[in-house]
Amino acid sequence: MFFEITSQSTESNARTGVMHTDHGDIETPCFMPVGTQATVKTLDSQDLEVLDPEVILANTYHLHLRPGEDLIADFGGLHTFMNWKGPILTDSGGFQVFSLGQEKIGKKQRHNLPSEGRSTSTTQESKREGSSLDNDELGEHAKLVSIDDDGVTFRSHIDGSEHRFTAEVAIDIQHKLGADIIMAWDECTPDDADEAYAKKALKRTHEWAERSLTYHKQTEKKTNKQFLFGIVQGAQHKVLREESAHVISAMDFDGIAIGGESIGYNMKATKEILSWVMPLIPENKPHYTMGVGYSPTDLFEVVEAGIDMFDCVAPTRIARNGALYVSPEVKEHDKKYTITITRVDYREDKNPIDPSCTCHTCKNYSRAYIHHLFRAGEMLGYRLATIHNLHFLLELMRDMREAIQEDRFLEMKKKWIQ
Amino acid sequence: MFFEITSQSTESNARTGVMHTDHGDIETPCFMPVGTQATVKTLDSQDLEVLDPEVILANTYHLHLRPGEDLIADFGGLHTFMNWKGPILTDSGGFQVFSLGQEKIGKKQRHNLPSEGRSTSTTQESKREGSSLDNDELGEHAKLVSIDDDGVTFRSHIDGSEHRFTAEVAIDIQHKLGADIIMAWDECTPDDADEAYAKKALKRTHEWAERSLTYHKQTEKKTNKQFLFGIVQGAQHKVLREESAHVISAMDFDGIAIGGESIGYNMKATKEILSWVMPLIPENKPHYTMGVGYSPTDLFEVVEAGIDMFDCVAPTRIARNGALYVSPEVKEHDKKYTITITRVDYREDKNPIDPSCTCHTCKNYSRAYIHHLFRAGEMLGYRLATIHNLHFLLELMRDMREAIQEDRFLEMKKKWIQ
Repeated sequence: MFFEITSQSTESNARTGVMHTDHGDIETPCFMPVGTQATVKTLDSQDLEVLDPEVILANTYHLHLRPGEDLIADFGGLHTFMNWKGPILTDSGGFQVFSLGQEKIGKKQRHNLPSEGRSTSTTQESKREGSSLDNDELGEHAKLVSIDDDGVTFRSHIDGSEHRFTAEVAIDIQHKLGADIIMAWDECTPDDADEAYAKKALKRTHEWAERSLTYHKQTEKKTNKQFLFGIVQGAQHKVLREESAHVISAMDFDGIAIGGESIGYNMKATKEILSWVMPLIPENKPHYTMGVGYSPTDLFEVVEAGIDMFDCVAPTRIARNGALYVSPEVKEHDKKYTITITRVDYREDKNPIDPSCTCHTCKNYSRAYIHHLFRAGEMLGYRLATIHNLHFLLELMRDMREAIQEDRFLEMKKKWIQ
Repeated sequence: MFFEITSQSTESNARTGVMHTDHGDIETPCFMPVGTQATVKTLDSQDLEVLDPEVILANTYHLHLRPGEDLIADFGGLHTFMNWKGPILTDSGGFQVFSLGQEKIGKKQRHNLPSEGRSTSTTQESKREGSSLDNDELGEHAKLVSIDDDGVTFRSHIDGSEHRFTAEVAIDIQHKLGADIIMAWDECTPDDADEAYAKKALKRTHEWAERSLTYHKQTEKKTNKQFLFGIVQGAQHKVLREESAHVISAMDFDGIAIGGESIGYNMKATKEILSWVMPLIPENKPHYTMGVGYSPTDLFEVVEAGIDMFDCVAPTRIARNGALYVSPEVKEHDKKYTITITRVDYREDKNPIDPSCTCHTCKNYSRAYIHHLFRAGEMLGYRLATIHNLHFLLELMRDMREAIQEDRFLEMKKKWIQ
């Protein structure tokens, strides 16, 4: 059995579980650090071993373009290529490919979207690598060329070369990358797409889900067990989200993801979508919100709704901008859950980032030293900040799992969210 | 006793020794990694502990400007501030301050200076942080304002603010930084300065040496033993170098450094200067060439001449440019002693950088992975490359010390230098 539920909160939908993979067990609920290009930015696999995440994520779009799935397959897959022995999940590439073309399909530009329960320092950050809100990372070449019912043609952000993804291509690439959990090919529709467009896109997503599943079953390598998750889409339309929940749940996927542009990025919309979808998807499969994890608040909210897995690029990206998580007891924080280490307030501060934190950074370095590294533009600062932010969230998840097991999840949540 | 000679090559001037400091013994001859801004770029103190250098160097000029010696003193010195428990050496700041003003004092611009025994990949690199050949790192504000017989006024490369260094100021700052070995304040004259200018500058250097020594003895903190080295200058003029060797040797310094623009940067000139100076300086004090270490060849040459210590920013800087040291047995190197990891040749290469290397990078990652990290602009690449290059040179020095102790130094040198 792939997934087992090990405990259930009596006062909410929160639960703990375990997913068994060839590269070890994944305890849930878990936050998955993002290693877009086969490295969690600034960290090596030894740093990761110390941080001990349950599973890390890598991006199919980026790895397809560079260094290419064939090269990685020739190394025996991502695990060997990056020397990470734990579980890996790859996305399908859909989120990146579709965010290239959002203007084409009528999406309004939205910056500083109002949202609840999110540190203001993170509102200008995009939630996942390659979001349209982060076009500088995709570069000037990046372009969506065309969407049709069979797949999508797009241009590489690296060299402008033309590529085409279909359900079969996305699964093929993910087979070669060799992650333990892989994702169906889907269309990530902008959330403000009108219902007619969203309906048409959803029809494609469901056909592509079926094709992903069929192709996976036909071509899966027997030596390398890969679990395939389906993705519920449907933008902000209740009727489409419900339809999608029914359709995806009826297919033989190993897990159910909830995708869409606003998942994680707009927590008000995320909670509304979860209120429609969660009652309709099977309890006994893992539930994954794609793009959640700006702040501790967001993690509590999706876990409370019964979500088991989530990933977000924000914790590592804001770290590189000097926004460092601190626990609620730290009084001098200047943003909810974060301090901005570049502020002059920290210039002479002998304390660790968070006195209660046990990470490598907090055990060994002062705020003043990290402030100095950031001010001096030293790369070491980005690594120490990344280690801290990831440790902080991973430790929070370890504590959260314990709280659920001891049926005191809401009590723990209350301590964190005033 | 601060310095003891532990063995002497019978076939050359090479020797091994040990310097006893409050932060541990320094085995010589040794290469000192450069940690300009209180970090060896990309590395933290744990990385350094694994690499196990005998001593690291930090730059007084940079640390004075940011974060300032008072802040570091308030932390108990550099060791605590950067959490490095081993020995540290600080320079006097003279090299950086004077390289700001080289055009003013009639120095010709020299790039791609011909040199012997140096990897071509490094000829465009400056040897020390803040050299005039590397003005981009000093920024547009940096400017030497005036030199007089008492000291130097200059403008910060960070914010254009005016600062003044004298012998007393340079020693004061170094007392506050708290390194185990500190350097006298000197004028680093351009090597093509005419004899009249060089003579005038040398007179100042000798007066400043005396003042540095006197001030150090008067104000040294008894709790924190700091050994003070004098610096032999004199540009490319034999008579001045000889005079300087006599004058500096006659003073009560703990060690003798040989400084100057071409030391390390132009190995032909370096060897000539050493041939003048080495017979005149006391054998029983440690000998330090400031700025040597572009390549293994350079290390062999100064060690053969009887040098005990050297530092150079090139090994870590070329690492960040993708030039990685390989031992002579590695046939596919494209430069003497280095491969350029960004070359397409290494795209699919499953080997470690150097199959005989035992560093963290070579034990865990392939050339293809590091090639990918560099191509993708991932910061991890710079750290893994830095770890490799430093391990390579530090291991070479460990082997060299063993070869000297076993009196087979020239045999070892021959294996490395065809």
